[in-house]
This record gives sequence, structure tokens and C-alpha cells, in this order.
Amino acid sequence: MMRLPDKWLLGLIQNRVVDDKKTNIDTAGKMIAEAAARGAEVVALPEMFNCPYNSRLFPGFAERYPDGETIGMLSEMAAAKNIYIFGGSIPEREEKQIFNTCFVFGPDGSLLARHRKCHLYDVDLKDGLTFKESDVLERGNRITVVNTPFGKIGVGICYDIRFPEMARAMALQGAVLMVLPAAFNLISGPAHWELTLRMRAVDNQFYVAGVSPARNEQASYVVYGHSMLVDPWGKIVQSLEEKEGIIVAEVDLERLRRVRDEFPLLKHRRVDLYELREL
Amino acid sequence: MMRLPDKWLLGLIQNRVVDDKKTNIDTAGKMIAEAAARGAEVVALPEMFNCPYNSRLFPGFAERYPDGETIGMLSEMAAAKNIYIFGGSIPEREEKQIFNTCFVFGPDGSLLARHRKCHLYDVDLKDGLTFKESDVLERGNRITVVNTPFGKIGVGICYDIRFPEMARAMALQGAVLMVLPAAFNLISGPAHWELTLRMRAVDNQFYVAGVSPARNEQASYVVYGHSMLVDPWGKIVQSLEEKEGIIVAEVDLERLRRVRDEFPLLKHRRVDLYELREL
Repeated sequence: MMRLPDKWLLGLIQNRVVDDKKTNIDTAGKMIAEAAARGAEVVALPEMFNCPYNSRLFPGFAERYPDGETIGMLSEMAAAKNIYIFGGSIPEREEKQIFNTCFVFGPDGSLLARHRKCHLYDVDLKDGLTFKESDVLERGNRITVVNTPFGKIGVGICYDIRFPEMARAMALQGAVLMVLPAAFNLISGPAHWELTLRMRAVDNQFYVAGVSPARNEQASYVVYGHSMLVDPWGKIVQSLEEKEGIIVAEVDLERLRRVRDEFPLLKHRRVDLYELREL
Repeated sequence: MMRLPDKWLLGLIQNRVVDDKKTNIDTAGKMIAEAAARGAEVVALPEMFNCPYNSRLFPGFAERYPDGETIGMLSEMAAAKNIYIFGGSIPEREEKQIFNTCFVFGPDGSLLARHRKCHLYDVDLKDGLTFKESDVLERGNRITVVNTPFGKIGVGICYDIRFPEMARAMALQGAVLMVLPAAFNLISGPAHWELTLRMRAVDNQFYVAGVSPARNEQASYVVYGHSMLVDPWGKIVQSLEEKEGIIVAEVDLERLRRVRDEFPLLKHRRVDLYELREL
């Protein structure tokens, strides 16, 4: 097995999503190029970076692999810049079904993995916010951990982070980083975004990258922003506010090993005591 | 089944632990009486509330059930004040073994449950803090959820909270509150205390009460303090700073039901995808 580099640079793209798909693809492409120019070897995008987060729009924006223009841009940029791209998510069509999917491309432009959101966001807050993804979307049925020369990288999408079991499964599969394209809103964002990203990192002693679109106050669903990279001790390495921006920050695997060595949480688990069952 | 009350008062005791056991028992007894006088129907104490947190002292302070004087005080106070007492923890001796144990008494003074810390704190931080409970203590082998007229209440002790699987198991068994006697220190406290209590509450949509001793700068192990009650949305209901003090705060089961109804995380788990295995 090849030795992992001790440190490498991760790029996170917080683009402002508008109603026009072509504009979103162009913006994302330019921002990926900038992150690569700043040294990022792995670049991650936000959830629904090519489409406003509105389930009525998903069918019209959906693409089939490998033909879609968003998918094509991601593959071409990965090859052109010699980087790994975790393509946030886009609406993906397969036969009559639509998924919320993250396509992952390697530096030769080939598809390495595809994560389909496993936990669909069906909530009904009494103070107004209601969203029911399952009206339009099908759910994925696999936890995704991608093998790269920078370490194994898990991918979840937004609501997937709400379930500690999923991040844990990634850590147990050897992930050093969990990438989370997401679109928290102005209720869940202030309440839980930073808290959740930090805690999954602390519990699993790996890096967690939350990648959100920039805030667009004109949208029907207003996202929180605040993309950030968190280290395995729960410290925020770098974060954005609500505006468009790029993070290029260090993933330090030496630090990860030190945290796991000094504070061996993962080894202290009592698997004999726990249970996995329905409520 | 008896209907649970919609709201009830929980008392949390943050006493300052000194070297003299008798003083610690007296202080705790007075503070329990004060919490009961303020209306608390369930009262919880901190980890090692009768003994400085120093594993060399545990054998000398240890008590056997039912004879120990700390154990006797807890049982008598529960009966005298007609309350439930979650007796933080004390060193418990059974034959040649010592455990870090929480004794739980009901309003008739009888023992309802006994939780022995399941995850022992063996860490070696390079910047100085080293602690190895397993040199002196044996570990418990059961997750503890106590049935009370106020709802089911889970009990963990300190490092037990580090393992999301344990809090989750309690939620799956129907707990509405997790009580955590603990003694985080000046490294883990600022880094992770509030974060962890809040996140276990959010993930499991129940109340979490973290109960620490007050800070004693003269002790060999200086604790963080900051006892707090967190609600099922992750909001801090009430908290203390580092000094001695008492919290009497409301556990609102109506709020718990509303959070679970509007944002049904526990129902959205995908048990088909997760795994429970060793690292």
C-alpha cells in the first residue's frame, strides 16, 4: 500500500446557486479552477450546486450519467487540473427515478464513485419550514467511502450527517475525512450546523468538511452557508460566512494519527454493549 | 401504563469535592435538600462526588452496598424528601474489585438501579494530562435505563458520553433524559463538554443533564464544572459556571414530543445501512 502524504490541501467551493443551470456550472467550474490554482488536490462542491434547492425543480435540472453537462464539466475539470473532485450533488435521473447524487471523479477524469443521499429530508416544522424530498427523490442504499492516494474519503449528503451511525460506519471503514455537501437552512443552520460537523469529527477522530452553497436571499429555500473544515479534535480549521467563497485548507494526517494515539476513542468502543435496531 | 407528567423539575448538584469524605457527604446532602425544597422531583449528583478524582484515592473511599455511609445518605435523602436520586458516582467495592458506580434510589429509599461506568478513561495527552482508570477500576458491562414515573432515564458516567452508540441505545430503549455524572477537565471541558452534551441531545431527541463537581484548583485533577441541562433541540436550558451551585430546571416532555414529531430523526434511521463492528 502506498504511504499517505502527511498533509495535503482540500478545496471547498461555496458557490451562489441561481435559477440558471448554465450559470451555476460556469461559476462552479471557475471556482474549481481557482481552488486548484491555490494548490487543492481534492476539491468538494455543495449539495445541489447546479440547481436551486426546490424539489419541484429537480426533475428539470436532473442529468443522466454520463451525458449531463454538469457531470461532463466535473469530469473535464478533474482531468484538466489533475485533481479529485467530490461533485457536491446534483439531481440524477435513472430511468424514472431521481436521486440526490454526488459524483466523484479522479484526476484521469473517470468516475470513481457515486453517492446517492441515503436519508431523505422529510420534515415539517410548525414555524413554517416544510420540506419533503421523498415526494420527488428516491433514496440511495449504500454508504460511500472512496479510496484515494490522500486517504479514504467518505461522502454523505446533508441530512445524512444527522445520523451518527453513518459517519461511524465511514470511520470504521478507514475514512480520514468525511465530505458533506449540504444545504442547511436558516433554522437548522444556526441551531445545528457547526455543532454536528464538529461532533462527528470528534467522535470519529477524522476530518469533516461541510460544503454549503452561498446564501441567496431570493431563493425559495434560503441556505445557511458557513462551509467549514473541522479537524479530528473538533477545531474549525477554516470557515466561510454566508457569502460566496473558497476554502483551501490543510488536512493533516499526522495530526489525525496523534489525536487517535493520545485519545484512543475508536479503540475504547464497547461493541459488546451496543445495539443496532429500529426505534 | 401511567401517563407521564408533561413537565417536571430536575435538580443538578455541583458540589465542590474536598479530601474529606464526611465533608463531601454532608455538602451533598444539604444541596440535595435544597434542590428538593426548590421543587426538584429527580436530583442528580456529579461523578465521584464523595472523593477527589484521583485513582489512588478510590480504594480508600470505596463503599460496599448497602453499608457505605454515602450510599446510606443517598437512600435516606431519597426517602426523606420523597424524590428520585441519581447518586452521581462513588468508588464501589465488590469483593476485590472497584467500580465507578452510580446508585439510583427511589422515593421509598430502595435501590432502583446501579450503573457501573462502562468505558474507562485511559488517555495520555502529550501536553501533560494522563489518566488510567483501568489501573484501579473494573468496568461495568450494562447500559442502564431506569423506569420512573417521570419517564425512562438513562445513566452514563463521564467517558461513557464519548460513545454515541451508548446514548443511542438509551434512546432506543425509550429514555427521555440521559443523566451524565462527569468530571471533564480543563482540556476536555473547554474543547468538548458542551458540544458533546448538546449533540447527544440533538441526535437522540432527549434531554441530557451533565453534572460535574465544582472546580477545586487545589485538587490533583482539576474539573471543568459547567453542569447543564440541554433540551432535545440542543438548547441549553440552564447551566452553571465553575463554582458550586444547584440547577433546578424543567424537563418538558411536551417539547420532546414536539421535536420528535416535527423533525423525526429517530424514525428516519436506516438501520439496514449501518454496522456495529470493531475498528
